Amino acid sequence: MRISRRNCLLGCGLAAASLPAWAGDTAAGEHFLWLMMLLLLARLASLVERIGQPAVLGELAIGIVLGNLALAGFGGLAPLKGDAILHFLAELGVVVLLFQIGLESELSAMRQVGLRAFLVAVVGVVLPFLLGTWLVGPLLLPAAPFVAHLFLGAALTATSVGITGRVFQDAGQLHSAEARIVLGAAVIDDVLGLIILAVVSAIAQTGSVGLAEVAIISAKSLAFLLGAVLLGQAVAPRLARRMARIHPGPAMQFTVLISFCLGFAYLAHQVGLAPIVGAFAAGLILESAYMRDFRRDDLHVTLGEALIPAEPALRAELERVLEHENRHRMQRLVEPVGFLLVPLFFVLTGMQVDLVSFADPHTVAIALAVTVVAVLGKIAAGLAAGPVDKWLVGWGMVPRGEVGLIFAAIGRQIGVVSAELYSVIVVVIVLTTLVTPPVLAWLLRRRGLAS
Amino acid sequence: MRISRRNCLLGCGLAAASLPAWAGDTAAGEHFLWLMMLLLLARLASLVERIGQPAVLGELAIGIVLGNLALAGFGGLAPLKGDAILHFLAELGVVVLLFQIGLESELSAMRQVGLRAFLVAVVGVVLPFLLGTWLVGPLLLPAAPFVAHLFLGAALTATSVGITGRVFQDAGQLHSAEARIVLGAAVIDDVLGLIILAVVSAIAQTGSVGLAEVAIISAKSLAFLLGAVLLGQAVAPRLARRMARIHPGPAMQFTVLISFCLGFAYLAHQVGLAPIVGAFAAGLILESAYMRDFRRDDLHVTLGEALIPAEPALRAELERVLEHENRHRMQRLVEPVGFLLVPLFFVLTGMQVDLVSFADPHTVAIALAVTVVAVLGKIAAGLAAGPVDKWLVGWGMVPRGEVGLIFAAIGRQIGVVSAELYSVIVVVIVLTTLVTPPVLAWLLRRRGLAS
Repeated sequence: MRISRRNCLLGCGLAAASLPAWAGDTAAGEHFLWLMMLLLLARLASLVERIGQPAVLGELAIGIVLGNLALAGFGGLAPLKGDAILHFLAELGVVVLLFQIGLESELSAMRQVGLRAFLVAVVGVVLPFLLGTWLVGPLLLPAAPFVAHLFLGAALTATSVGITGRVFQDAGQLHSAEARIVLGAAVIDDVLGLIILAVVSAIAQTGSVGLAEVAIISAKSLAFLLGAVLLGQAVAPRLARRMARIHPGPAMQFTVLISFCLGFAYLAHQVGLAPIVGAFAAGLILESAYMRDFRRDDLHVTLGEALIPAEPALRAELERVLEHENRHRMQRLVEPVGFLLVPLFFVLTGMQVDLVSFADPHTVAIALAVTVVAVLGKIAAGLAAGPVDKWLVGWGMVPRGEVGLIFAAIGRQIGVVSAELYSVIVVVIVLTTLVTPPVLAWLLRRRGLAS
Repeated sequence: MRISRRNCLLGCGLAAASLPAWAGDTAAGEHFLWLMMLLLLARLASLVERIGQPAVLGELAIGIVLGNLALAGFGGLAPLKGDAILHFLAELGVVVLLFQIGLESELSAMRQVGLRAFLVAVVGVVLPFLLGTWLVGPLLLPAAPFVAHLFLGAALTATSVGITGRVFQDAGQLHSAEARIVLGAAVIDDVLGLIILAVVSAIAQTGSVGLAEVAIISAKSLAFLLGAVLLGQAVAPRLARRMARIHPGPAMQFTVLISFCLGFAYLAHQVGLAPIVGAFAAGLILESAYMRDFRRDDLHVTLGEALIPAEPALRAELERVLEHENRHRMQRLVEPVGFLLVPLFFVLTGMQVDLVSFADPHTVAIALAVTVVAVLGKIAAGLAAGPVDKWLVGWGMVPRGEVGLIFAAIGRQIGVVSAELYSVIVVVIVLTTLVTPPVLAWLLRRRGLAS
C-alpha cells in the first residue's frame, strides 16, 4: 500500500479527526478546488451584464446548470449540493451582502421612507396571505384542508431581499427612494412573517391562537430592531473610538466592522428573525464618521501632506478624493470578503433548484397560477409606495426565499402540507427568484431612459 | 410546543437537510457568534505586541486558554474544537496567509538565496532525523523498536512555516534575506519530508525501501514546483490580461488572485505537498506587473488627472503615491480576507493544545529533551545560511506542525508509534510552536538595535 499524507488522512478517520488544526486534511483540499471553480464560473456567468441582464441572474443560472448536471448523466458535483462548509460560506456571503447594503444605506434616509415602507410591507404581506388562503388555495387544491391553504397563504408573504438588494447594488441604485423602500419593507416584512408563522402554526396544531405567544414574538423582534437602531447608534461610535484607541490599524477596523455584522446577524437569528435582517441593521447604524479615529493608511498621509502646498484648484480636487476615500473606507475593507463569499450564495441558491420539480405538468400549472398571485400581491403592495416608481418597488418585493421554504417545511413536519403542495411552494420560490432580476433590470433601464 | 423558525430547523433534521441554501439554518447562526468571538479575542490578544511579543503568540495563547476552559469546569466551547466549518476556515486562513507572503516575496529575490535555502533545508532535515533516530530515540525510549525511533526522527524533520512567516510579516521583515531563506527552505523541506515519509513508511511496513516509489513521489513534487514556477510565469500574465479584457473591475481581479491561490493549494495537495506550499508558490509567481490591465479605481483616475497640471515637486510625490498603490493593489485586495481568516488559524491551533498532555511528568521530560534536539538541529541548519543572521534563520526553521503530526498519526495507525511517543511528538510540536515567536521577536529587535 502506498501511503501518502493524503491517503493516510483518508484512511485513518479517527486519527485524523483527533488531529489538530495544523493538519491539512483532504476535505480542505477538495474544497479549495470547488471554491476556485465556483468563483471562476460565477464571475464568468456574471458577464450576462453585457446583454443587459443583472449579474446575479448569471450566477443563479450557472448554479442551476451545475446543480442539474446529474440529469445529463454527470453526477460528479452532487456532493457540493449538501456540503455543510459551502453552505456556511454561502450563508455568510448573503449576510455580508446585506451588511454591505446596510453600510451604503443611511439610517436618516431610511427613516424618511419609513411610513411608506411600512405600508408596502403590510399590503405585501396581507394581500398574498388572503389571496393564498381564501382564493388560490381552495380553487387549485380543493381537496386539501383549510390549514393547508393557510400554510400556502403564509408561505407567500415574506420577501427575500437578497436578490433585489444585489440587483440594486449592481445597478448603483441603492440610494434611490425605491431601493430604500424595498429594503425597509423587507425588514418589516420579516417581522410580520414571523408573527404569521406563530399564528398559523398555533392554529394548525391547537386550532386556536395563543395571543400571549404572538405578543412575545412580536415584542422580541421589535425590541431587537429598536434596540439595534437606538442602542446601536449610542454604542457604536463609542465602541469604535475605544477600539481605535486600542489599535488604530485596518486589521482592528475590519474586526470591529465584521464583529458588528456577525453579532447582529446572530442576535436577529436568536429572536427568530433572518440573520440578514440583523446584518442589514448593523450596516445601517455604522457610519463612516464613527471610524474617524482609525489610522489613515500611507496613501492618506502622503496625500494629506501633498495637500498643504498645493494650489487651490488642485487642492480642492485632492480634498474631494480624500473625502471620498474616507467615506468609502468601510466598504473598501469589506468588499473583498464580499467578492469571495457573495457569489457562492447565489450559485448555491441556483444549485438547489431541482429541475425535476418541474417535471410534473400538474404541479407546474398550479405553481404558475400561484406565482401569478404571488407576484400580483406584491405589485399591489408597490402601489402603497407613494410618489416613486411603483412598479420598481412592487417587483422589488416579489422574490420569495428562505421564509417561504421554512413555512413549507414546518407545515410538512406537522403533516399539513402535502408533498405536492411542498413542490408547488418550491417552484413558486424558484420562479419569483428567477423572474425578478431581468424585470428589475428592465424597469431600471426604462427609468434611466425616462429621466 | 412553541415553534419558531429556529426550533423548526433544529427539530426537523431531515427536512432541514433538504432545504435550499436560502434557509438560514441554526448551525450558521451559532457560527456567526463563534466567529465574532474568536475574531474579537484574537485581535485583542494580538495586543501582546505592546509588550514586545509577536501578535501571533497572543493569538496562540488565547487559543490555548479557550481550548482548555474545560479544565476550569467550563465545557461550553468544546464543540468549537472539532467543528468542521471553523477548521476549514482556519485551513483556508493559513493558505491565504502564505499566499499573501508569496505576493510580498519576489521570485527573483528568492532565486538569489536558492542555494543557501537548499543547504538550510537539507541540514535541517538530515540532522534532526539522524539525532532523533539514532540518539534521542534509543536513549530516551530504549524499549521502543527501531522503527519507532525512525518515526520519531522523521517527525522532527519538517518545518511548519506559518508561524515564522507571520512573525516576519508582522515585523515587516519579509524582504530580508533571512526571511527569504527560511521561506525557500520550508518549501524544499516539505518535499524532503514527503520523501522521508515514503521511505520510513515503506521500511516500517515491508522492511525495505521501494526506490521506484520514492522516485515517483520526488518526481511528482518537483514537477509541481518547477511547473508552478515556469509554467505559472508563462501563463499567469496572459491569463490575467485575458481576464482583465473580459472584465477589468476589482471583482474580476480578486477572483483571478484567489483562484491562483486556491488552484495551486489544491494542486500541491494533490501531489502530496502541503497546500500552503502551493499557495506560497502562487503568490510568488504573481507580480503586480501582470495586473496592469485591471481598471484603476476612481481614486487612481482622479489622481492621475490631478497629476497633469501639478507642479513638478508635487507631481513626483503623487506619482510615487500612485506607483506605491499600484504595486500593492494585489495585497490590498487580499488583505481583508486575511483579516477574517488568518487569526482563526492561529486561535484554532492554540485550541488544539491539550494541556492534559503536559500532565505526565515522564512524557514531558522526554518531550523537553526531544524539543532541545529538535531546536538544535534547526539552529545548526541556520549555520548553512551564509552571511546573514544565522540565528534568525535557524530559529525561523524551528516550528514543527502538521507534517510532524501526520507522521505520528501514520506511525500510530501502522502500530509503530505508541500512545506515549505520540504524546511526546504532540508536546514537541506545541513547544517549538510557542517558543519560536518570542525568540524571533527578540532576535529581530536585537538586529534592529545592531543595525
